[in-house]
Amino acid sequence: METLAQIGEDALIRRLTHALPLGADVIAGAGDDCAIVRPVRGRKLQLLKTDCIIEGVHFRRDSEPERVGWKAMARVVSDIAAMGGTPEHAMVTMVLPVELTVEYVEKIYAGLRRCAETFAINVVGGETSRGSQIMISVSLTGSVPEMRCTRRDGAKPGDAICVTGQLGGSLRGRHLDFVPRVAEAQWLTRHFTVHAMMDLSDGLAKDLPRMAQASRVEFVINEGALPANEGCTMEQAWSDGEDYELLFAMPEPPTKRQLQSWNRAFPGVALTCVGRFVEMEKGQAPSFLGKGWDHFTPSTNS
Amino acid sequence: METLAQIGEDALIRRLTHALPLGADVIAGAGDDCAIVRPVRGRKLQLLKTDCIIEGVHFRRDSEPERVGWKAMARVVSDIAAMGGTPEHAMVTMVLPVELTVEYVEKIYAGLRRCAETFAINVVGGETSRGSQIMISVSLTGSVPEMRCTRRDGAKPGDAICVTGQLGGSLRGRHLDFVPRVAEAQWLTRHFTVHAMMDLSDGLAKDLPRMAQASRVEFVINEGALPANEGCTMEQAWSDGEDYELLFAMPEPPTKRQLQSWNRAFPGVALTCVGRFVEMEKGQAPSFLGKGWDHFTPSTNS
Repeated sequence: METLAQIGEDALIRRLTHALPLGADVIAGAGDDCAIVRPVRGRKLQLLKTDCIIEGVHFRRDSEPERVGWKAMARVVSDIAAMGGTPEHAMVTMVLPVELTVEYVEKIYAGLRRCAETFAINVVGGETSRGSQIMISVSLTGSVPEMRCTRRDGAKPGDAICVTGQLGGSLRGRHLDFVPRVAEAQWLTRHFTVHAMMDLSDGLAKDLPRMAQASRVEFVINEGALPANEGCTMEQAWSDGEDYELLFAMPEPPTKRQLQSWNRAFPGVALTCVGRFVEMEKGQAPSFLGKGWDHFTPSTNS
Repeated sequence: METLAQIGEDALIRRLTHALPLGADVIAGAGDDCAIVRPVRGRKLQLLKTDCIIEGVHFRRDSEPERVGWKAMARVVSDIAAMGGTPEHAMVTMVLPVELTVEYVEKIYAGLRRCAETFAINVVGGETSRGSQIMISVSLTGSVPEMRCTRRDGAKPGDAICVTGQLGGSLRGRHLDFVPRVAEAQWLTRHFTVHAMMDLSDGLAKDLPRMAQASRVEFVINEGALPANEGCTMEQAWSDGEDYELLFAMPEPPTKRQLQSWNRAFPGVALTCVGRFVEMEKGQAPSFLGKGWDHFTPSTNS
């Protein structure tokens, strides 16, 4: 099988990027010094995100390359989703050891591309270079109506803490195939009063304290309410990372009617209230990433 | 001296990103799932670019880290400049071996930051990860008035081929300190009729055929006219890369009066007409990257 060393960079790029579908907002994709796109229009804001995955850190070389590519794109899509946004234009950088086969790299790119097409994202540029370790970096732009942009710092004391889907055990395989919650997040910002939202990439145990800290509140978790994935303990649902579910705050737990309407829109996707944000103790410094954990003991549960 | 392994990622990010200056168009920089920025306004287009530099490929570990950081940012700024644009928002991804000292990484970041501040660029986000090789990737947005956007595919037969500055010998040191031609490019698009423009990153010998190919023209070079840097041969001015000067096409060589006006605006920066674009031979395939070289023989010079 051909390796990258044999075909060279220009031929590789041609094979990877030929016939990339581009939307009407793209005036020029890859090929010039920069891509040229039409600006975000209307009362919208632009979202910008970049993220990378590295061989040996985020995946192994014997992981299926198509799924690795999917994950590299899906991670940044999940971040755009968490702001209530719609992903738009992506740039893909790949650092590749020269001994890789062209077939392997084409499979990575096929995964990236399949994810981009699933979410109508234009791949408008990128970069390849040689290196000793595989690295895939994706930069993504998105847009969000100004009134629907959900930051992580808007949670208020008394807000219900909710999560989508099931948590825990993602590293057994789901982390390579997750589908970012773009439609779900937009539905939530349209139908519920969402004070704050973020995606669960590092696990509830790390990400919930981040939302609390940004919002200057504390939290109380109802341990028994955690929606654990099949075969997972509550501890795993709490601590395992890579769920890519949505964590959000709303003034009251969803009503029965709201839940019915959610279930009609997204059958099979759980929506669970797992606790409440509470007032920060007087004199409490805003940094309490350690203390957050204390709340996960039976004695402090509500 | 402290290493990255000793202080950990969160502390590193705090040390690198504290007090990053942000312009009024940035609603939220690093810290949430995405950065939030105001969209490009007016009759402008958005430019998107990403690029990376890698230890052992683009620089050595014993290169001065502050200059390496400058170069990583300056390369993408040069691409925005080449479209006639103004750089706006940057995201910086760094892959770092854990044995690096914090001081070394802070110096890289200081260089990135100094370049960003020089061009009023907001660093709105980024990512750090561990890896076996240093890799610095910068994604940059920019804007350009729709009427002033200079692509590389607009050169016409008969156009004069011009370059800014001096060429060749960059790898002796200048490649780590070059100042992207942002102001120069904008001046050119305002004062001259620029049909096509790009930056010279791989050397005239590779980049000029790219412009010709994109524009479906051929070119004739006046070898004696190449503005070689001091101590460089014509061959080096033609073939050495990393000049980061502007290559552009205009209908006629600049007049004496135009050159005077350029010299008043940018004293000490040469502006040289080095040849002409000519009609593509009938039946000629648009791909002639090899053939471009043939024009650099005395027998075909005009």
